[in-house]
Amino acid sequence: MENKEKDILKDGERLDDLQIKDLKIIQNPEMFSFGMDSVLLANFVKIKNKKQKLMDLCTGTGIIPLIIAGKRDIDEIDALEIQENVADMANRSVIYNNLQEKIKIIEGDIKKVRDDFPHQSYDIISVNPPYMPPEKMSSISYTKAVSKQEIKMDLNDLFLGAKHLLKPNGKMYMVHRPSRLVDIFSIARLYKIEPKEIGFVHPKADKPSNLVLIEFSKGGRAELKILENLYVYDENGEYTNQIKEIYS
Amino acid sequence: MENKEKDILKDGERLDDLQIKDLKIIQNPEMFSFGMDSVLLANFVKIKNKKQKLMDLCTGTGIIPLIIAGKRDIDEIDALEIQENVADMANRSVIYNNLQEKIKIIEGDIKKVRDDFPHQSYDIISVNPPYMPPEKMSSISYTKAVSKQEIKMDLNDLFLGAKHLLKPNGKMYMVHRPSRLVDIFSIARLYKIEPKEIGFVHPKADKPSNLVLIEFSKGGRAELKILENLYVYDENGEYTNQIKEIYS
Repeated sequence: MENKEKDILKDGERLDDLQIKDLKIIQNPEMFSFGMDSVLLANFVKIKNKKQKLMDLCTGTGIIPLIIAGKRDIDEIDALEIQENVADMANRSVIYNNLQEKIKIIEGDIKKVRDDFPHQSYDIISVNPPYMPPEKMSSISYTKAVSKQEIKMDLNDLFLGAKHLLKPNGKMYMVHRPSRLVDIFSIARLYKIEPKEIGFVHPKADKPSNLVLIEFSKGGRAELKILENLYVYDENGEYTNQIKEIYS
Repeated sequence: MENKEKDILKDGERLDDLQIKDLKIIQNPEMFSFGMDSVLLANFVKIKNKKQKLMDLCTGTGIIPLIIAGKRDIDEIDALEIQENVADMANRSVIYNNLQEKIKIIEGDIKKVRDDFPHQSYDIISVNPPYMPPEKMSSISYTKAVSKQEIKMDLNDLFLGAKHLLKPNGKMYMVHRPSRLVDIFSIARLYKIEPKEIGFVHPKADKPSNLVLIEFSKGGRAELKILENLYVYDENGEYTNQIKEIYS
């Protein structure tokens, strides 16, 4: 192990290759590790010009800001994470990748963004939130549970926070489970953050969708556009060209 | 033309073959003609036993009840249509097909079902409603516009009516446009008629979905299931096996 790696890693952590540029990310195998959902979301975010200000909510180990800062042309990304130990990992990944100029990891609570951040200060929000309601019996670690379940925040907190943070006509990009679509759409409508485009991700062409990518617009007109489906594997079990392009 | 046909048709009307059993339907080419959406919906409806009572809302020329009565085992279907001339066509189609014992066409207004029908009197509702909000400039006939646009009723009227008509845990089956999903889901939630299953219909595997089939449950738990996609045409422009099976 190189010295640089030894200095940046804490017990139980390892440095994983993002396979995107030369980016690396600090992860702890006992906590939540990023998945393809984050890569798809980072790719789904539209950035019109590099002066746009982006906030990544529920950033976890910072995977979304790392990919966006690494692949796209944007000057300023803020990223909010509620768990101190996870935010600390994200911050060290930012330093390791030398992206401190672009990415600011902020330890904080989405329920308090109205106190902590100025009104309508972001052009873009990206978010890969916990997908499922809290389970009473959970065999996973608490840190992992907070990443996967709506323990510290729920969809209502998310949209209420986004409503405060987003400029008028600002966009939000979310990845989530199709099983939660009714919750997502009805709460979004409540806060006038209108779903505009949705893409269904299927493991294979003949399998039902297990992920959705959604673009919202603050104050947008009600008309949902269905994007082309995204298939992860082809009939031979290989990545499809759609996925290869995203990872290239 | 046989005498039976001459007797049943009015000016401008013709008798079309449903290509399902020996069923025929009276249509007027200047008005709204049924499409594949109705055939898919009729196939999507689940009937647990023949004593279940079904109401088809926005029945138009009666296509849904005709297919269901022709193909499925069910004793009693009521069907509501607001336009007098269209309800009259539906009624004559029922008589022509000798299905008067099973299907009752009722001329009436969905906005008045609370006065006209007993509370919680149906196990199942099927509905292929007008898809789009009213357009100010419409070049089509008024009868056709009422079938295609939310002129005489909208989604709010539909769910309010369904809430009155459906028994607790009763099911509603709807076909609609994906572009209206946010409206549908948020209004459904308002009336506690929960979307439970959704199937996306695509013209081809590589084209975005242009129709959705949705199963709702009155008072159901919030968890949406995404069904296998339905593709209409294969890569050679032929009907897929999925579609051939439905039409067989």
